Amino acid sequence: MSNIYSQSLDKIAANSQPLTPINFLNRSADVYPDKIAIIHGKQKITYQQYHKNVRRLASSLIKNGVNPGQTVSIMAANIPAFLDAHYGVPLTGAVLNAINIRLDAENIAFILDHAECDVLFTDTAFSSVIKQALALSKRNPLVIDIDDPEGPGGERLGVMEYQELLAQGDENFTGSLIHDEWQALALNYTSGTTGNPKGVVYSHRGAYLNSLGHNFVWPTDSKTNYLWTLPMFHCNGWCFPWTIVAVGGTQICLRQVEVGAIVNAMIEHKVSHFCGAPIVLNMILNADESLLAQLPKNIKAMTAGAPPPAAVIKGIENLGIEITQSYGLTEVYGPCVVSEWKDEWNERSDDERAALKARQGVRYTNYIKFVI
Amino acid sequence: MSNIYSQSLDKIAANSQPLTPINFLNRSADVYPDKIAIIHGKQKITYQQYHKNVRRLASSLIKNGVNPGQTVSIMAANIPAFLDAHYGVPLTGAVLNAINIRLDAENIAFILDHAECDVLFTDTAFSSVIKQALALSKRNPLVIDIDDPEGPGGERLGVMEYQELLAQGDENFTGSLIHDEWQALALNYTSGTTGNPKGVVYSHRGAYLNSLGHNFVWPTDSKTNYLWTLPMFHCNGWCFPWTIVAVGGTQICLRQVEVGAIVNAMIEHKVSHFCGAPIVLNMILNADESLLAQLPKNIKAMTAGAPPPAAVIKGIENLGIEITQSYGLTEVYGPCVVSEWKDEWNERSDDERAALKARQGVRYTNYIKFVI
Repeated sequence: MSNIYSQSLDKIAANSQPLTPINFLNRSADVYPDKIAIIHGKQKITYQQYHKNVRRLASSLIKNGVNPGQTVSIMAANIPAFLDAHYGVPLTGAVLNAINIRLDAENIAFILDHAECDVLFTDTAFSSVIKQALALSKRNPLVIDIDDPEGPGGERLGVMEYQELLAQGDENFTGSLIHDEWQALALNYTSGTTGNPKGVVYSHRGAYLNSLGHNFVWPTDSKTNYLWTLPMFHCNGWCFPWTIVAVGGTQICLRQVEVGAIVNAMIEHKVSHFCGAPIVLNMILNADESLLAQLPKNIKAMTAGAPPPAAVIKGIENLGIEITQSYGLTEVYGPCVVSEWKDEWNERSDDERAALKARQGVRYTNYIKFVI
Repeated sequence: MSNIYSQSLDKIAANSQPLTPINFLNRSADVYPDKIAIIHGKQKITYQQYHKNVRRLASSLIKNGVNPGQTVSIMAANIPAFLDAHYGVPLTGAVLNAINIRLDAENIAFILDHAECDVLFTDTAFSSVIKQALALSKRNPLVIDIDDPEGPGGERLGVMEYQELLAQGDENFTGSLIHDEWQALALNYTSGTTGNPKGVVYSHRGAYLNSLGHNFVWPTDSKTNYLWTLPMFHCNGWCFPWTIVAVGGTQICLRQVEVGAIVNAMIEHKVSHFCGAPIVLNMILNADESLLAQLPKNIKAMTAGAPPPAAVIKGIENLGIEITQSYGLTEVYGPCVVSEWKDEWNERSDDERAALKARQGVRYTNYIKFVI
């Protein structure tokens, strides 16, 4: 290559900012300081408060000895502390290891050992299985309990509660330990159907690209009210803890994926978007008709994995919920291909439309597949 | 950092695909083969045809001796060949140098010399000034004329016409000479108000990120009909030759920025989006009322630079055109900050709304500003 080009770009590359999704919160706290970022039961957390909580979390973890490259695990329902962790943990340079709440003590212990867990956040709802897992594990992590006011309560296992940890932190902390976009951000285990769970490492760069990629196939914006039905432990909630913050939307937490709670939350918080397996669509279809009549119009649902049957697609779309069908896997940060809808398909029969919707589709807009 | 993380991510980094906007065309040709990608006068070019033209262009440039790191300059109005060049030139590993059509022969000659121009595409409408520039320049590039059927004609200066070059190419060419996302893609000169023009080098990575970044502040999609009023030579048309292809929209070319042509194109092609300086908005405001009455509803305009005066904003918005005000510069690939609108501002007086709209705003959603 000619020298005029290589010199100028080498200099820029050396000084470039690393791509990372954790910077999105900084921007939304600047642009939408007083907007509600997170709703959880009676709690409403603004972007400014969310930003401060994350700074507190990161600085407190550092005070408690967390170093870059260490592993911070979390076992929790879809609650605000989990959303904090998606920013506060990687901000320290440590790696967020979200654990599937449906695993048994043996599998959890395997993960704590294999991930070399240094800190464990544990929702008290899961104390019983976590206590067993800690007994089985060779690790001796710093354990922090999360006693969620919306939760069922449970035994505390750790040295302090999450709010005490935040209270030790500094809301003006501005340190940054991300110097390389290829640095590890998260460690997610597949469920290990054929053996022990297998770990997948997510980079800051990959999470940045995947979280923004959703917007080209399933747009969200600052008017979005996103309901958490998909577990946050599952591929980091398909990267949506970063996507929704990037666009300045509102995230509505929900501890339990149960039909009454889902439909009520949709009505109360004017939900515009949610993600979930086809089973969630099925649950909604079976809700009380009087409740369904109150659903907000034009809800957008993203489903992934096995496509829902034609009858479910038809039923859900009759409720005014528009389905986008995608497919992905833990190894690629969640959905990466999508059945991109074409207007001319609107004319087809219900069965044909369901079959087209069920196709696993084409790669995401921003994916590079290097054939020219 | 712990070894478990650094090992796995080093391996991925080494095998990663380079971020580049030229891959967007490949995807849209796969997903929307028969959709109209480009309209120019009577020509309608599908995504499949566009893709083939680009492959022909790249393979033909290589046959004619173009190597990675060389400079391919272009002097042209907003025509399809210019859109081809945004993909076909970088596909060879060469660098696209778009020249401002308003420069005089001395400035053009300076650019040809400074950019070390190897190939020059020249719209015959500009033969006169280009002939003088070539006489002044120390370079002896391969000159290809573009004799646009919608153009005014003019002397041919080169060894062949653009269509002959395409005819020599291979529509099945699949080579790729992009191995590094920091590789140079484009070279754009600022207008040099205080001296000679100054060159800015764009990387594949930067153009990828900037072209996708627009969608978070000014969404487009496969239903978008984008009218070219902004010159493509200006910061590569703010990266929109890549943005609109990424989303599978239709680009409507227009040789001349003249009020009748603009308004007629808007009506005929159901334009949904356009970019331009405030002067373009002014021109539209002064169009025939009978024409303005036929404008499509809900056109979105992105303006940049000096914000339009309140009266213009008010007048344009009364026509149903929604303005997004941004600011940027050649050095950062066009717009990079935007006056992000907040719903609560809708209630304000016209003057207050115009003043808020005129603010140069906040950084783009996907920009990294590394303060946590």
